[in-house]
Amino acid sequence: MGELAPRRLPTILFLGLAPIGGWFIIRPLLEPVSLPALFTSFGLSIFAFLSTIYLVPALGPAFIKANLKGRDLLKTSDAPIPESLGLVCASVYIMTLLLFIPVAFSETFSKSPGFTREGIVVTEFPLHQLSVYLSAILSLLIATLLGFLDDVFDIRWRHKLPIPIIASIPLLMVYFAEGGNTNVVVPLPLRWLFGPLIHLGPLYYLYMSLLSTFATNSINILAGINGSEVSQAIIIAVSLILNDLLYLPWSMGFRLPIHLLGNDTEIEFGGVWRAGMAYGSKIMVERHLLSLYFMLPLVAVCSGFMYHNWFPARAFPGDTLCYFTGMAFAVVGIQGHFSKTLLLFFLPQIFNFLLSCPQLFGLVPCPRHRVPRFDKDTWLLSPSTAKLERHSQLITIILRLFSALGFVRLTTDATGRITETTNLTILNCILVRLGPMGEKQLVKTLMATQVAGSVLAFVIRYGLARMVFDGDRR
Amino acid sequence: MGELAPRRLPTILFLGLAPIGGWFIIRPLLEPVSLPALFTSFGLSIFAFLSTIYLVPALGPAFIKANLKGRDLLKTSDAPIPESLGLVCASVYIMTLLLFIPVAFSETFSKSPGFTREGIVVTEFPLHQLSVYLSAILSLLIATLLGFLDDVFDIRWRHKLPIPIIASIPLLMVYFAEGGNTNVVVPLPLRWLFGPLIHLGPLYYLYMSLLSTFATNSINILAGINGSEVSQAIIIAVSLILNDLLYLPWSMGFRLPIHLLGNDTEIEFGGVWRAGMAYGSKIMVERHLLSLYFMLPLVAVCSGFMYHNWFPARAFPGDTLCYFTGMAFAVVGIQGHFSKTLLLFFLPQIFNFLLSCPQLFGLVPCPRHRVPRFDKDTWLLSPSTAKLERHSQLITIILRLFSALGFVRLTTDATGRITETTNLTILNCILVRLGPMGEKQLVKTLMATQVAGSVLAFVIRYGLARMVFDGDRR
Repeated sequence: MGELAPRRLPTILFLGLAPIGGWFIIRPLLEPVSLPALFTSFGLSIFAFLSTIYLVPALGPAFIKANLKGRDLLKTSDAPIPESLGLVCASVYIMTLLLFIPVAFSETFSKSPGFTREGIVVTEFPLHQLSVYLSAILSLLIATLLGFLDDVFDIRWRHKLPIPIIASIPLLMVYFAEGGNTNVVVPLPLRWLFGPLIHLGPLYYLYMSLLSTFATNSINILAGINGSEVSQAIIIAVSLILNDLLYLPWSMGFRLPIHLLGNDTEIEFGGVWRAGMAYGSKIMVERHLLSLYFMLPLVAVCSGFMYHNWFPARAFPGDTLCYFTGMAFAVVGIQGHFSKTLLLFFLPQIFNFLLSCPQLFGLVPCPRHRVPRFDKDTWLLSPSTAKLERHSQLITIILRLFSALGFVRLTTDATGRITETTNLTILNCILVRLGPMGEKQLVKTLMATQVAGSVLAFVIRYGLARMVFDGDRR
Repeated sequence: MGELAPRRLPTILFLGLAPIGGWFIIRPLLEPVSLPALFTSFGLSIFAFLSTIYLVPALGPAFIKANLKGRDLLKTSDAPIPESLGLVCASVYIMTLLLFIPVAFSETFSKSPGFTREGIVVTEFPLHQLSVYLSAILSLLIATLLGFLDDVFDIRWRHKLPIPIIASIPLLMVYFAEGGNTNVVVPLPLRWLFGPLIHLGPLYYLYMSLLSTFATNSINILAGINGSEVSQAIIIAVSLILNDLLYLPWSMGFRLPIHLLGNDTEIEFGGVWRAGMAYGSKIMVERHLLSLYFMLPLVAVCSGFMYHNWFPARAFPGDTLCYFTGMAFAVVGIQGHFSKTLLLFFLPQIFNFLLSCPQLFGLVPCPRHRVPRFDKDTWLLSPSTAKLERHSQLITIILRLFSALGFVRLTTDATGRITETTNLTILNCILVRLGPMGEKQLVKTLMATQVAGSVLAFVIRYGLARMVFDGDRR
C-alpha cells in the first residue's frame, strides 16, 4: 500500500507559481497591455493548475470511500486507486471559465480610459458573444455530468454513444437561436460540382453533433494505460494553442519558412494590423482568442492531473475526463469555425478509430478490455489478442491487409486460417512494431506519435491546404 | 417487497396527454396567437411531466444498483428505495429548458409575417436576454451536479452551505458582465433615512448569493417525510405562476376585490395595453414571462415525481431535488427582480428556519435525524425529541417562549429544569399542536400550511405592500 501514497508535491511549486499567476491576473489593471483578457486567462490558468494538482490527492480518499475506485490492471499491486478524478479537473476547469466571464465580457475591465492602441484592437468581447461562451460552458457541464453518471452507473457501450450529442444541445440551440450560418466552404477540386459554398442547413447541426461525438469517443477508446488519455488531451490542446497564436496581433512580426512545406509564398505572421494569419479580420482574431480562453485552462488542469496519473498512476481519470476534454475540443472547433483544422490534430485518434472499426462493429470479437497484456515478472507489455472462431472472407482480407501494413500480428493454424489477432488498437500496434516495452515507455511512444501527428497536421494545414482551399474561410 | 413495486401508470395518461402537449407546441405555428412561446412552454411542460413520471420508475433499479438507495425510516419494511431521483427530475427539467431556447429566442418562431397585434407585444425575447437565460440554466446545472455529488459523497453539513453560492456564480458573473443594476427600492417609511433607492454595489451580489443559499437550504431542512420536499416546491412554483399571470396582457380585463385586503383602490388586471399589474411596462411583462418559462416545467417535473414520492414513497428525491428546485426559485426571483415577493412565498420555510436556529447553531443538541418518531404498531407519527444535558439561561428563555407559543413540548425534572424538548421543526410543531397523526395526514397538513402561507403572501404583497412601497419597482 505504501507505494500508492499520493505523489509528493514540492512546497516551492505553490510558493513559486502563485505570485506569477497573481501578477498575470492584475497586470492588465496596472498598465494598459495589448489583449488584457489573455493575460488574466493565463494567470487564472496557473491557479487552475495549482488547484488541480493539490485537489486530486486531497479528494482521492473521498472517491475511494464512495466506491469510485479501480485496480490497475497493468500492475502487481491490488491496492485500490481512486477513479473518475477527471471530475475534479472538470470542476476546476469550469469554475475557471466562469470566473473569467467578468474579465472577458464586462466593460469595467476592458475600457482603459485615455489609452489608444494601434492595429487590430480586441480589448473586449462584444456582449453578444457572451451567450456563445455560456452555451459552450453549458455543453461542457453537461458532458461532465453525463461522464460522471457513466462512471457511477456504468452505462452500457451502446447507450453511451448519444451522450456527446445530448451535451452538444446547448451549442446547437444557441447557434440556431442566433441564426448562425450553416455553410461549409468547398475544397477547390470539388467546386465544379458543388460551387464555392454548400448550404448544409439542418445537416450542419448533424455535423456539429457528430464532431462532438467523435472528439469525445476517440479519446475514450484510446485509453487503458497510465497517462494515455490526459497526455493526448494536453498535446491536442497545445497544438490548438500554437495554431491560435498565429492569428493574434503580435507586436513584432515574424516569418515562418512555409515554402519548405510546399507553399508557393512565404507567410508573414504577427503585425498589429494584419494580426498574422487573420489578415486583418477582427472576427478571426476574436475566434482564436475564444479558443485560447478555453485551451489555456484545459492544458492547466490536464497538466495538474497528469502529475498524479503518470506511471505508476495514483489516480484514474474515469470517463469524465474524456467527455469534458473531448467536448472542449468540439466547442472550440465549432465556435472558432476551424473544425477541419481541429480534426487534423486528431490524426492518431482517427487512425486508432479506423483500426478499431472491425472490433467496434462486431466483425472481429472484442474482449471487455483491449489493453496490452502485462507480464508481471518482467513488467513489460506485449500485444493482447482476440481469438477468432469463424469469420467471413471480408475479415480475412482486412486482417491480412492490416498485417501486411504491420498493424497487427496474426496467428494461423495448419490450414492457414486465422485463429488469433492482436487487438486492433494503436497501443497494440505500437507493441507489434516495436516489440514489448514497459508501460512508461509505451505512453511516451504514444505521446511521440501524437506530437508527430500534430507536426504533420501543421504541414497539411499551412502547406498543402493552399492547394485545396483559397483564403475564403467562413 | 411486493408493496414496493413501482406505482402503476395508467396507459390513458400518455395517450391522453401527449396529443394535448403536441397541440400546444404546434399551435403558435398554425395560427398567430398572443404570447406564442408561452403556448410552446406549456406544451413542452406536458412532455416534461410525462417523461418524469415514466422515467422515475424505469431508472429506479439502476439507482439501487449504484448504491443510491435508502430505507424509509417511517415504515416497517426494510426494502431499499431508490434515492436521489431528483436527478431525473433535474435532467428532464434542464433538457426542457434547453429545447425551449430556439422557441423563445430565435426569430424563426417569433416572426409571423403579415400579422399585427394590439397592445403590449412580446412576440420574442430580445437576443441579449439569451445570456441571462443561459446563465440561469448554468446555475441550475451546477446546483444539480453539486446536489448529486452531495448524494454520492455524503458531504458534511458545514461543507454543504457554500454549494448554492458556487451554483449562483454564473448568475452573478453574467449580471456583473451585463452591468446589471445593484439598487434596491427602499420601503416608504425608511426613505427619510436612505432616500428612495439604495445603491448596494458589491453587497447586491452578496444579497443574491444569500438568496440562493436560503431558497435551497430552507427546502432541504424542511424534509424527512414522504412528499414533503416536492410538495413545497410545487406549491411555491404554482404561487409564482399565479403571481406572474397578473402581469400578462390578457385579452379580457378583470378586477380583483383588492380593497377587501386593505387597499384603497381596486386594481384592474388584464387588458392588452396595460398588461395587468405591469402598467404598460414591456420589461415587466418580459420578466414575468421569463419566470413562467422556468416555473411551468418545474411544476411539471415535480408533479411527475410526486406521483412516485407520495406516501408510501417508491422513490426518494435526495438532496438533488432540493438543490435544483431552490436554485430555480432563486433564479426567477433574481432575474425577474421580485426577490422580496419570492421570499413571501417562503413563509413556512422562514418559520421553520427561525424555529430551527437554536438547533442549527448548536445551542440545543441536534440529533442526526429530526424526523417525527414512528410508532410501528399504530403507524402514527409523534414529535421526536432532543435531550438537553446542561444549558444556558438563554436557551431556557427561548424554549419557554416556544413552549408558550405552542411550538414545542418540554419535559422538566422535579426542579423545573428542562430535560427534553421536541425537535425544533415545523413538522414536530404540527404534531405538538394537532396530536399524533399518520404520515399521509402530516404531509397534507404541511401542504395546507404552505397554501395558507401563499394566500397570506398575496394579501401582504397586493394588500399591505401599497402602504410600504409605491409603484416604483426597479
